[in-house]
Amino acid sequence: MALQVGIVGGGQLARMMIAPAVELGVDVRVLAEADGMSAGLAATAVGDYRDLDTVLAFAKDVDVITFDHEHVPQDVLRGLVDAGVAVHPGPDALFYAQDKLRMRAKLAELGMPQPDWAAVADVTALDAFIADHGGRAVVKTPRGGYDGKGVRVVSAASEASDWFAALEPSGELLVEELVDFTRELAQQVARRPSGDFVVYPVVETVQKGGVCAEAIAPAPHAAGRLADVAADIGEAIAVGLGVTGMLAVELFETTDERLLVNELAMRPHNSGHWSQDGAVTGQFEQHIRAVLDLPLGDTALRAPWAVMVNILGGPVSDSLADRMPAALEAHPGAKVHTYGKDPRPGRKVGHVNVAGDDLDAVCYEARAAAAFFTD
Amino acid sequence: MALQVGIVGGGQLARMMIAPAVELGVDVRVLAEADGMSAGLAATAVGDYRDLDTVLAFAKDVDVITFDHEHVPQDVLRGLVDAGVAVHPGPDALFYAQDKLRMRAKLAELGMPQPDWAAVADVTALDAFIADHGGRAVVKTPRGGYDGKGVRVVSAASEASDWFAALEPSGELLVEELVDFTRELAQQVARRPSGDFVVYPVVETVQKGGVCAEAIAPAPHAAGRLADVAADIGEAIAVGLGVTGMLAVELFETTDERLLVNELAMRPHNSGHWSQDGAVTGQFEQHIRAVLDLPLGDTALRAPWAVMVNILGGPVSDSLADRMPAALEAHPGAKVHTYGKDPRPGRKVGHVNVAGDDLDAVCYEARAAAAFFTD
Repeated sequence: MALQVGIVGGGQLARMMIAPAVELGVDVRVLAEADGMSAGLAATAVGDYRDLDTVLAFAKDVDVITFDHEHVPQDVLRGLVDAGVAVHPGPDALFYAQDKLRMRAKLAELGMPQPDWAAVADVTALDAFIADHGGRAVVKTPRGGYDGKGVRVVSAASEASDWFAALEPSGELLVEELVDFTRELAQQVARRPSGDFVVYPVVETVQKGGVCAEAIAPAPHAAGRLADVAADIGEAIAVGLGVTGMLAVELFETTDERLLVNELAMRPHNSGHWSQDGAVTGQFEQHIRAVLDLPLGDTALRAPWAVMVNILGGPVSDSLADRMPAALEAHPGAKVHTYGKDPRPGRKVGHVNVAGDDLDAVCYEARAAAAFFTD
Repeated sequence: MALQVGIVGGGQLARMMIAPAVELGVDVRVLAEADGMSAGLAATAVGDYRDLDTVLAFAKDVDVITFDHEHVPQDVLRGLVDAGVAVHPGPDALFYAQDKLRMRAKLAELGMPQPDWAAVADVTALDAFIADHGGRAVVKTPRGGYDGKGVRVVSAASEASDWFAALEPSGELLVEELVDFTRELAQQVARRPSGDFVVYPVVETVQKGGVCAEAIAPAPHAAGRLADVAADIGEAIAVGLGVTGMLAVELFETTDERLLVNELAMRPHNSGHWSQDGAVTGQFEQHIRAVLDLPLGDTALRAPWAVMVNILGGPVSDSLADRMPAALEAHPGAKVHTYGKDPRPGRKVGHVNVAGDDLDAVCYEARAAAAFFTD
C-alpha cells in the first residue's frame, strides 16, 4: 500500500509536489480551493480549507496532512490533530508563521538575530519607533501578508492609519527597522517529526516589488562563515519552533556583515525552487519525505551553480504554451516549470532553472529563457 | 491552453511521463487497461486499446497520441491517423517495432550492422540455419515478445516446434545467429516530426534473464569511435524508419569490436531510465517534447557517471513502501523510482538512479540501494 499525503491547497507548491511523489511511489491527494487549480491533476476534493468538517473528510485515510500555504486556521489545524490526524507542520509551528508578531517574539526568545522591531497599537507608538530609527520603518500587518502584501515602508504613522483603523480591539501592528542590507539570502532546512534535519546551501535571492525574482545557489561569496551562520540560524529556528517539513528563512545580509531574519515560510518556498534541478534532492521531494517522517535526502548541489528565475506575469497577448517553442529552441539546457495559471500582471506563473559550471553563463541562460515568457 | 498529450497504456512508462509533463505545463491523459494501473493518476479513460472506437473517443481533443507500449494494432493506429489525430510514433514506424522480421529486413535495406538472420517457415530451414551457425541460434516470434518473452536459444529446430505449430499459414519465425558479444549497449535517440533529433550518450546495459538489470551512462571505454558509431546507428534508424519520440537501439558489442543491432524500442526504454536523474533532459521529458514537436532538450550528462539499477520482483513479505525508510536512510543520494505495482517474481517494480564522479562508488550505491527492495 502506497503512503498517502494529503495537501491542503491546490496552488503551484502542491503542484510541484506531484512529480517527486509519483516517482517515490507516494500517493498525493489535494484539497483544492476550486476546479482548475495548479495542482488539479491530484485534486480529490474541492472545498473550503477554513471548514473543519471539509478538511476532516479530506484527511480521512491519509498518512499525513501538509499544506500548499500557511493560511489554514488554528481551530481547523487543532481539530485535525484532535481527530488523530498527523499534521506537518503542526499547529504550534504554523502559529508562528501565521502571526509575524508572535514570530518576532519567539525569535527574540531564541536569541535569533533580527531587525529592531516592536508591536505598536497606535500611531503615537509607531511615530516614536520611526523617530528612533532614522525617520523610516517597515510596518507589517501581523497576519495574512505574503509576496509584499501587508508590508509598507513608511516615514510617518499616518501612512498606516487605515491599518490601525482596521485593527481589532487590543490589536497591534508589527513595525521593524528598515535594514541597511547589501543583499538578501535564504536558508532552506528540512526537518522530520522524529527530529532529523538537513540544511541546503544558503542562496542569494533578488526581490522585485516584494516578490522573489531570482535565486542563486549557492549564494556567491558566502562559503565559510556566512554559510555556517545561515545554516545555524536555520537549524535553530526549525528546532526552536518545532517546524516539520521544509522551512525557508529569508535573511538580510547587512552592510556590517551580519545576518538578520526577515521572514519565515513553513513549506517549500520560491527561494528553493532551484533545488528541483540543482540539488540531489529537490525541496518538493524533501518536503514529502519530511512530512512522512522518511529519511531525508542529500541536499548537495548537482552542479557548481544553479539559478532560478521566476516568470512573473507571463505573456499578455498569448499563453505560456505559445512561448514554449521559441524558449526551448533557444535554451535546450533550461528547465522550464509552469504552474497551469493564467497570466496576470505580477503573478507567479512559472520559473526557469539552469545549472552549470559558470555562474555568469548560468544566470544569463536562466534570465534569457525566462524572458521568452513575458512581454 | 495547455498542450494535451494522450498516452495509450497505463504502465510505468506512461507513469514516468507524468512528472516532466506536469512541470512543463503539458496535460497528460492516459487510456489505461484497467483501474489502479501505474499511471492511474493521469488516467482519464479505461478501455481496450485494440478497439478503434475506444481509442478514438480517448483521442478527442488531444494534441497528440503516444504510447506506453508498441502493441496498438495497425488498424487502430491507421484509424487514428485517418481521423486526423497526430500519432507519434506513427503507424509506419511502429510497424517495424511490431514485427521483428520486418525490422530485420528494413535494417538490412538501410545497411545497418546486425547479426546474421533469416526468416524460417519450418524446422528444416531452421535446422539448416543452425547448422550454418555453429550449432546454436536464437529463435524469435516476430510479434508480441518483450523482456525475454518470445526469445529462445536453441540447438535444434525441434526446440521451437510449438512455435512453428502455432504459426499462421505462410507465417515465419525469425532466427538470428547467437552473437559472440563482450557486452550490450543501448543508444537513445529522440526525433521530432519536423526532423530534428538528438542523441544521448551510449550506455552499457546488463541483462539478467532477458531483462534489463542495470545501465551505466556513459558506457565505460566507449568514448570516441564506439560512441560515434552507436550515435550514427541511432540516427540512421530513427531517420530511416521515420521514428518520432524516443527510440532505443539495443546493441551487441562483439569480440571483434563491431556493433550489431539487437532490438529496437520506439518509446522511452528501461535502458534510458538513468537519464531522469543523470541527464539535463530525461527521456520521459524528451519523449513528451518530441511527440509534441517541441524543440528537444540537452542530452548532456549532469555528472560524469549515472547508473540505473532495476528493482526486479520486489519484496515478498512486505511492500516497497515498507522498505523505503531503510533504503533512504542508508542512501540519501539515491533516487528511488517506484511504479505502483505489486511485487511479483521477476517483475519490474521500480529502479534506483545514482549519479556522481566515481563509477565504482556510483555503481555500488545504486546496487546497494536497489537491494533494499528485494528479498
